[in-house]
Amino acid sequence: MKAEIIAIGNELVIGDTQDTNSAYLSSQLIELGIEVNSIKIIPDEINVIVEAINSSYIKSDIILITGGLGPTEDDLTRYAVAKALKEEQYISPILRETITQYFKTRNIEMPESNLSQSMIIPSAEIIPNEVGTAPGWWIERDKKILITMPGVPSELYEMWGNCIREKLQLKNNDLNIVIRTIKTFGRSESSIAEEIFDLFGSQNPSLGIYVKPDGVHLRIMGKDKSEAKAINLVKNFEEQIVSVLKPDIWGFDDDTLEQKLCDWMKHYGLKLSIMESCTGGLLSDTITSIEGSSKYFKGGVVSYSTESKILLGANSDVINEYGVISPQVAQEMSKAVRVFFDTDIGIGITGVLGEAPVDGNQPGVAYINISSSSHSRDWVMDFRRNRSIMKRRAVSSTIFQFLLFLNEYINDNKLDTK
Amino acid sequence: MKAEIIAIGNELVIGDTQDTNSAYLSSQLIELGIEVNSIKIIPDEINVIVEAINSSYIKSDIILITGGLGPTEDDLTRYAVAKALKEEQYISPILRETITQYFKTRNIEMPESNLSQSMIIPSAEIIPNEVGTAPGWWIERDKKILITMPGVPSELYEMWGNCIREKLQLKNNDLNIVIRTIKTFGRSESSIAEEIFDLFGSQNPSLGIYVKPDGVHLRIMGKDKSEAKAINLVKNFEEQIVSVLKPDIWGFDDDTLEQKLCDWMKHYGLKLSIMESCTGGLLSDTITSIEGSSKYFKGGVVSYSTESKILLGANSDVINEYGVISPQVAQEMSKAVRVFFDTDIGIGITGVLGEAPVDGNQPGVAYINISSSSHSRDWVMDFRRNRSIMKRRAVSSTIFQFLLFLNEYINDNKLDTK
Repeated sequence: MKAEIIAIGNELVIGDTQDTNSAYLSSQLIELGIEVNSIKIIPDEINVIVEAINSSYIKSDIILITGGLGPTEDDLTRYAVAKALKEEQYISPILRETITQYFKTRNIEMPESNLSQSMIIPSAEIIPNEVGTAPGWWIERDKKILITMPGVPSELYEMWGNCIREKLQLKNNDLNIVIRTIKTFGRSESSIAEEIFDLFGSQNPSLGIYVKPDGVHLRIMGKDKSEAKAINLVKNFEEQIVSVLKPDIWGFDDDTLEQKLCDWMKHYGLKLSIMESCTGGLLSDTITSIEGSSKYFKGGVVSYSTESKILLGANSDVINEYGVISPQVAQEMSKAVRVFFDTDIGIGITGVLGEAPVDGNQPGVAYINISSSSHSRDWVMDFRRNRSIMKRRAVSSTIFQFLLFLNEYINDNKLDTK
Repeated sequence: MKAEIIAIGNELVIGDTQDTNSAYLSSQLIELGIEVNSIKIIPDEINVIVEAINSSYIKSDIILITGGLGPTEDDLTRYAVAKALKEEQYISPILRETITQYFKTRNIEMPESNLSQSMIIPSAEIIPNEVGTAPGWWIERDKKILITMPGVPSELYEMWGNCIREKLQLKNNDLNIVIRTIKTFGRSESSIAEEIFDLFGSQNPSLGIYVKPDGVHLRIMGKDKSEAKAINLVKNFEEQIVSVLKPDIWGFDDDTLEQKLCDWMKHYGLKLSIMESCTGGLLSDTITSIEGSSKYFKGGVVSYSTESKILLGANSDVINEYGVISPQVAQEMSKAVRVFFDTDIGIGITGVLGEAPVDGNQPGVAYINISSSSHSRDWVMDFRRNRSIMKRRAVSSTIFQFLLFLNEYINDNKLDTK
């Protein structure tokens, strides 16, 4: 089955809001074996929406529409779907009751405009919205499925997970799609592509190569009516790739560097602390985004002033001698924070990732140190990109290097799992 | 002039990569008075790409294509554009030389496949790529403009800023678009919409309303051949909205809460420190994303363990008595970090934003305190969303409350600007 996604909203075509729903839905659909033909992002204009629905209706089996279900005048999706399908909207007593109750239980007076959210068309089933007032519609007609969902991501996720995913799964059982993503770090796209050149251009399985903040990813996709055959197609490619690229591969599929770090640290019962300056808290934020990170992460310091580094125990003589942006100060920070929080391993990051030079150091330089009482690993990052990308890259590089550090540390100390 | 954007890449339609280029280009185009009709995201399939180009070619004056310019087999944009325009590709000696030099200066052997990036068609001008090997094409034919750009965001930004923006500006001088965004916090979408109901539905200026992590935004857009007239259209709406919503408005256009916070703190010469646990570093990261934040932000602590809170000076008796997830501990954290880093104001955040309860506290609860030696502001956030949204909301709420705190603090202490 082929699907198209239509995302509706002026805010999306003027670049005021990033449409993240379509990428979410695509990744979910592919897991159900449903391929997305195209994603269309269009403004809140009735004729444009109707035309988009009509043209998708011809090309695809499933049309997912997001956005434009709010209570205000510029929310046109209900109206556009009715018009495209030539049906009349009417007030659903069930929906009216649900929406009225929604406000009642929250002790808020219901704005008149919310009544528009209780409208429906004859061929539509209600998709309940557990977290907001905009219900979705599930429409089956002419052997097509048309689904409307709110644009607010949290409402869409809820509706997808609670209802739509399962309903679609029941409808689609004609094609199995198997995807395997192989994640590398530290190599360029073209040098990897050259090593596995023969595999590109194949239609099934197909191979894609993508540059990401956490390295170069290879994605193998196999399709077949038989799941076993689809798995085999992918496995064959995977083995060829792994045999060539093994030293550069750090993970597969949904693996993240921070999840790996969390797993290893918990596995060996090690504790971590961080002192970061130029990354401004992004390393701590990334690490703590993993459920269970409190098991090994004792604390982080965003040492955005020289005093703060000293207050946490960094030696002021070292700072005076080498300057605050230096490999020596990265080492001091890593050691100081490790001692302060009494952890096995510490990380120190100092650098200039802003727009102005600091202490004569040009933006785009970061010194990083990872240390334990027995081991130490230093490196410099030196490149000039915009601040947010640079922060992200410095964080990815730190976690990747951390995994290498950890491997050495565990081997040298002959650690057992806890 | 009307534009369409075509973003190409399998990774985009399977949801593996979020297409952020289109939103960037849209926001840039609208500033040039060029409206985006639609954004299409399509897979690396030659027929689909050619069809998308053909259909955009009919409807729009400008077509911007991103992605598919890499050196590998699945990069089909050059080929598809040539096919759609019925032109033949040939090797450009200038491009071949540029690409060869790119590798030479980096002391890397050039992979054979990169030669494909030196191909061009007769109607295309070269758009230089200063940061990568994939050049763009600028094509003017049949009174249309067709532009190809790499999908790697840093390369696209560079190409846009260095060349394309200016070239397009020279082409478009028939319509002025003026946009004004008004940002509120703490009110629901529909309650705001009700107060300014009369303004919706107007075509020019048009009014949009959007729910964002930092509150509800209103966007007024006015169009006219005369810039002065477009400005007046928008001004008229803005005055009506501001007169009704004044107490809820915290900013306009590109204002961010964190920029406001930075401006105020620098303005009054105040210093800030933070101790955050459940937000994991995101508050520090958000605050330090503003250039110049080191002027007022002395340090942050991600106190992911109870020991770390105590090491920074939080009273262990208070923690034992009230539990680590409590308003009292938020106050302790805010005070302790303020004393530790010797700052005017401190922020303390404790809560459960993960998936499992902590100390009998359900996920979705955060206690926040902002304090100075003379003032203190507490609040609770109590709602259940997924972890990343909750973190983001807690951070926005904290910075918004901080601005209110600051207003009171400055007034009560009769502070002068520094």
